[in-house]
Amino acid sequence: MIALKPGDRIGILGGGQLGRMLAMAAARLGFDVHVYTDEADSPASRVAARTTLAAYDDHAALGAFARDVGVVTSEFENVPAETAEALVAAGAVVRPNPRALAIAQDRVEEKRFLNSADVATAPFSAIADLQDLKGKLDLMKPPAILKTRRLGYDGQGQARITKLTDAEAAWEKIGQAPGILEGYCPFEREVSIIAARGEFGAIVFYDLCENDHTGGILTRTRVPAQAAPAVTAAAQEAARRVMVELGYVGVLTIEFFLMKDGTLVANELAPRVHNSGHWTIDGAVTSQFEQHVRAICGWPLGPADRLFDAEMINILGDEAHAWARFAADPGARLHLYGKRDTRAGRKMGHVTRLKPRGS
Amino acid sequence: MIALKPGDRIGILGGGQLGRMLAMAAARLGFDVHVYTDEADSPASRVAARTTLAAYDDHAALGAFARDVGVVTSEFENVPAETAEALVAAGAVVRPNPRALAIAQDRVEEKRFLNSADVATAPFSAIADLQDLKGKLDLMKPPAILKTRRLGYDGQGQARITKLTDAEAAWEKIGQAPGILEGYCPFEREVSIIAARGEFGAIVFYDLCENDHTGGILTRTRVPAQAAPAVTAAAQEAARRVMVELGYVGVLTIEFFLMKDGTLVANELAPRVHNSGHWTIDGAVTSQFEQHVRAICGWPLGPADRLFDAEMINILGDEAHAWARFAADPGARLHLYGKRDTRAGRKMGHVTRLKPRGS
Repeated sequence: MIALKPGDRIGILGGGQLGRMLAMAAARLGFDVHVYTDEADSPASRVAARTTLAAYDDHAALGAFARDVGVVTSEFENVPAETAEALVAAGAVVRPNPRALAIAQDRVEEKRFLNSADVATAPFSAIADLQDLKGKLDLMKPPAILKTRRLGYDGQGQARITKLTDAEAAWEKIGQAPGILEGYCPFEREVSIIAARGEFGAIVFYDLCENDHTGGILTRTRVPAQAAPAVTAAAQEAARRVMVELGYVGVLTIEFFLMKDGTLVANELAPRVHNSGHWTIDGAVTSQFEQHVRAICGWPLGPADRLFDAEMINILGDEAHAWARFAADPGARLHLYGKRDTRAGRKMGHVTRLKPRGS
Repeated sequence: MIALKPGDRIGILGGGQLGRMLAMAAARLGFDVHVYTDEADSPASRVAARTTLAAYDDHAALGAFARDVGVVTSEFENVPAETAEALVAAGAVVRPNPRALAIAQDRVEEKRFLNSADVATAPFSAIADLQDLKGKLDLMKPPAILKTRRLGYDGQGQARITKLTDAEAAWEKIGQAPGILEGYCPFEREVSIIAARGEFGAIVFYDLCENDHTGGILTRTRVPAQAAPAVTAAAQEAARRVMVELGYVGVLTIEFFLMKDGTLVANELAPRVHNSGHWTIDGAVTSQFEQHVRAICGWPLGPADRLFDAEMINILGDEAHAWARFAADPGARLHLYGKRDTRAGRKMGHVTRLKPRGS
């Protein structure tokens, strides 16, 4: 049990844009931030009081980091298990806890966990090798998607399988790594629920988000989602069960497929703030970043009320060169992440557009 | 003429809370920030990519700073003239320009300038010494206020004079420094106008703010101010004249006394973002901090529209110890500045409360 006070230091694993926005939210509440990253000149470190530039398996650096901060959180779920363990061994309070991180970084464990918490997923099978894939594909039948179990993000490490003979090419495409075969879900929309749980179990939910992806990368989020109240209630209930089961503290996101019959199929669990929640900076009483800081510091959660209807557009890759156009658009709230290099599909920033609620 | 692009570096003179909030606004737009301060472990440096810790008369450090950044701005008006000159000599673009800084840091120059721009002030006289004070007081008649010409802020360096025999005590109280004797204004309210002027002369105004001071320190700001539209128009016109006359680029604030007859008497000119504009972070489309960054970087100004009725309460001195109460108040948007020491009257943070417009 901890309750950090203003002036105390928060540790963030990872130096990307989520860490950057977390760091700014923490600073707004009077906290200092210490970023731990293996990336020199990272976006988060440029707004943080301290940075440790070291590998995620550098136990000496991790120990010093753990002793320097009152709580450790993470901006990405692929924190190596040994990193989290080394931090805990050095006495750090890690929030969300290492179990949540471990589950979220393995797609098979994630789906098994979701099912155990009574949250529906697509049918899935763990895949050990090509022969295994062929056998499981015979049972599941295409269309299906083969993904790596680990380290996939933004559509990386995925291969679509439309017929049995695609198996070998798909296995090659994901790098012959341990995989997961998922049944294809003919969804109507993609939605996400962003929730937060505090140290003493209080839970708040943001309004359901509706998301567009292109090539596996989020391009647009709109709130409110076009979905019946029962859909929102079901998404909230799923998030609640997951957080309670994990003893979770912090912001958590579940991405779902919304099927034609109104049912939800959980696609991904993110034990962190999420791209589909960026609209909360401009459009909610408490941003998801401040909410996460409040939760991990043992503070009361803030109201998650939505103030506006909102649309969030990601600025991807070369689109960032059009910054002057965004800067001149009076309807666009511009957020740029300070990334030095533009690469295709790389998240460089986002724009939020607000409208009065219900307009 | 400059136009900074995302990733470029902005220099900020001063490490206090205004610099901190400017730095965060700059980061949001993708800029890096380099803070120049003589204060170790300053609030602003803890959210900045770089810090130079040096005296304001360290020409070598100023030169290196000037060469490192695309534009230099300031979070306080008392930048020594030689500091600004050294920066300009080293090739820096200083915004607002040194003339605006020089005028705002000398109360006599400030009032002379305001009058020359056809902006009314209280009657005033420059005071060289005690004999001068006695003579001027004979002419002006009490009640009056004696202030230092320079380096006064938050009610420091001021002495109220209610009768002729107060002269010696008042002269002692302001430290026998060159002064200004101002006629007392029996005002009805205190208001402020926050305006911004862009590189190419575009001007935007925030709604008129109504301010409460205690002991010379701002305690509360409310928007909208209780004032007729003609009062707002007069305040805007005064700010416009001042900015045009100065060739000003950036955010500028004028504090006024609103007299019973509806006329405005300018009390202070701040060539910077201002405490009475903190509500804009939560309550306006573009915060005063982002607006200033946009202006000094040669970007188009953002909309200054107010989204809510707002009340901003400063957290002063020991009130900061009540952070847990503020953190638990769902109606309070909490901003803490990361100051290590609480001192009586020191600005430690602020809280903004929002209501629907016109409610």
